[in-house]
Amino acid sequence: MRLDVYPTAASAEGERFDSRAAVVIDVLRATSVIATALDHGAVDVVPVATPEEATELARDWPQDSYLLGGERQALPLPGFHVGNSPREYTPDRAGGRRVVLTTTNGTRALLAARSAASLFAASFLNARAVSREVAATGRDVVIICAGTVGRFDLVDTVCAGLVVEALTGPAVASELNDLAVAARELYGLHRGKLIELMHQCYHGQRLVSLGMGDDLVYCAQEDTVPVVPRWSDGRLVPSTDPTAPRA
Amino acid sequence: MRLDVYPTAASAEGERFDSRAAVVIDVLRATSVIATALDHGAVDVVPVATPEEATELARDWPQDSYLLGGERQALPLPGFHVGNSPREYTPDRAGGRRVVLTTTNGTRALLAARSAASLFAASFLNARAVSREVAATGRDVVIICAGTVGRFDLVDTVCAGLVVEALTGPAVASELNDLAVAARELYGLHRGKLIELMHQCYHGQRLVSLGMGDDLVYCAQEDTVPVVPRWSDGRLVPSTDPTAPRA
Repeated sequence: MRLDVYPTAASAEGERFDSRAAVVIDVLRATSVIATALDHGAVDVVPVATPEEATELARDWPQDSYLLGGERQALPLPGFHVGNSPREYTPDRAGGRRVVLTTTNGTRALLAARSAASLFAASFLNARAVSREVAATGRDVVIICAGTVGRFDLVDTVCAGLVVEALTGPAVASELNDLAVAARELYGLHRGKLIELMHQCYHGQRLVSLGMGDDLVYCAQEDTVPVVPRWSDGRLVPSTDPTAPRA
Repeated sequence: MRLDVYPTAASAEGERFDSRAAVVIDVLRATSVIATALDHGAVDVVPVATPEEATELARDWPQDSYLLGGERQALPLPGFHVGNSPREYTPDRAGGRRVVLTTTNGTRALLAARSAASLFAASFLNARAVSREVAATGRDVVIICAGTVGRFDLVDTVCAGLVVEALTGPAVASELNDLAVAARELYGLHRGKLIELMHQCYHGQRLVSLGMGDDLVYCAQEDTVPVVPRWSDGRLVPSTDPTAPRA
């Protein structure tokens, strides 16, 4: 199995992944939101590039059938139902509704990966569940970290390392690119200390400074969500039954 | 001190570093060549973008006054005196001569960093000597890894981590970007095992497959060269006296 990790959405743009399974990671916070919303019963999550596109898309939908969510510079958007905190996507808000989500980095990474044969969204909440479905495809893998404002994001990279480890084990594999090797090593270093990691990183520090430190605690949980969000026709749908009993 | 690491030349292009000290790293092999050539008495090293530019630049120079060196896809260039193996830059070849060097990744990274207030080239051979001169500038720092064909290169990143560690110590500093934190951690993991690291990485494996494995052994040496190559007017000159006694 060939496995390549890309550090940012931009670094993957223009690449073709037709024969690959792709995993997109934006731990803080888009892919944590996606896992949580689907786990809490959302019908699907539609990622769109701009707030205007979100409003436009939902204009003719029945009023109670959807949730507009997202952020710009980590802050909620005027006129939207929810921001980009996964803790806002409660069962009573997300259950039975479609979520239209616009975020800065996560959406861009999903769009960069959409040529892939299969495309999944992962966060610490569901990384091992996603890895199992990725392995089941039998395909070579590409992992695209969303990054933060176009830059390397250590939290996303460590989560990518968890997926690499889940897919390859700790053994040396010659078919990993350099960032896949590094990501697996970095996950090894930060295993069990994800909260400390988040406080060490730019994006985590920024969320804390905005009073969103509780999101770090939430997003640092490993394997609490069984749902595997899979890309299907421009939206993310639960690939597994979210009502299945939890491990 | 603010310290940012960039993963590739491309990621730094378009940025301005006017108030910063910049360090460019291309361990395999441009910045190892530059350190070695200057240590062996080269007058300066002029990095140029293309082989044609190299030939053109030296056209009117006295025949015995210069050395044309470089590579494309790691292989020597037709009509050039030397390739891109630092072991070719012996005192009898490099001594007293100007070196015109054209390499794929290293030149691009140097050009991306040329807006910096001070600009240095580092490899494992001279990383701590370079770090001392960087610290002496008293400026915020940017480290630009050349990367390999536009991608994250683990060897360059680990060398960046050595520079970060030399500049900051092991303590947590809030003014490191995420890649600076990661690089320092990765250097900690690979300290004393640089040869194994190189064999694990794409670029090292490629050089081995081309029969250039001895270059890995050479480039994995730490602090064997006292010379600090400093950018001055489009070329790299020895910032310290290369005839000074070695540590």
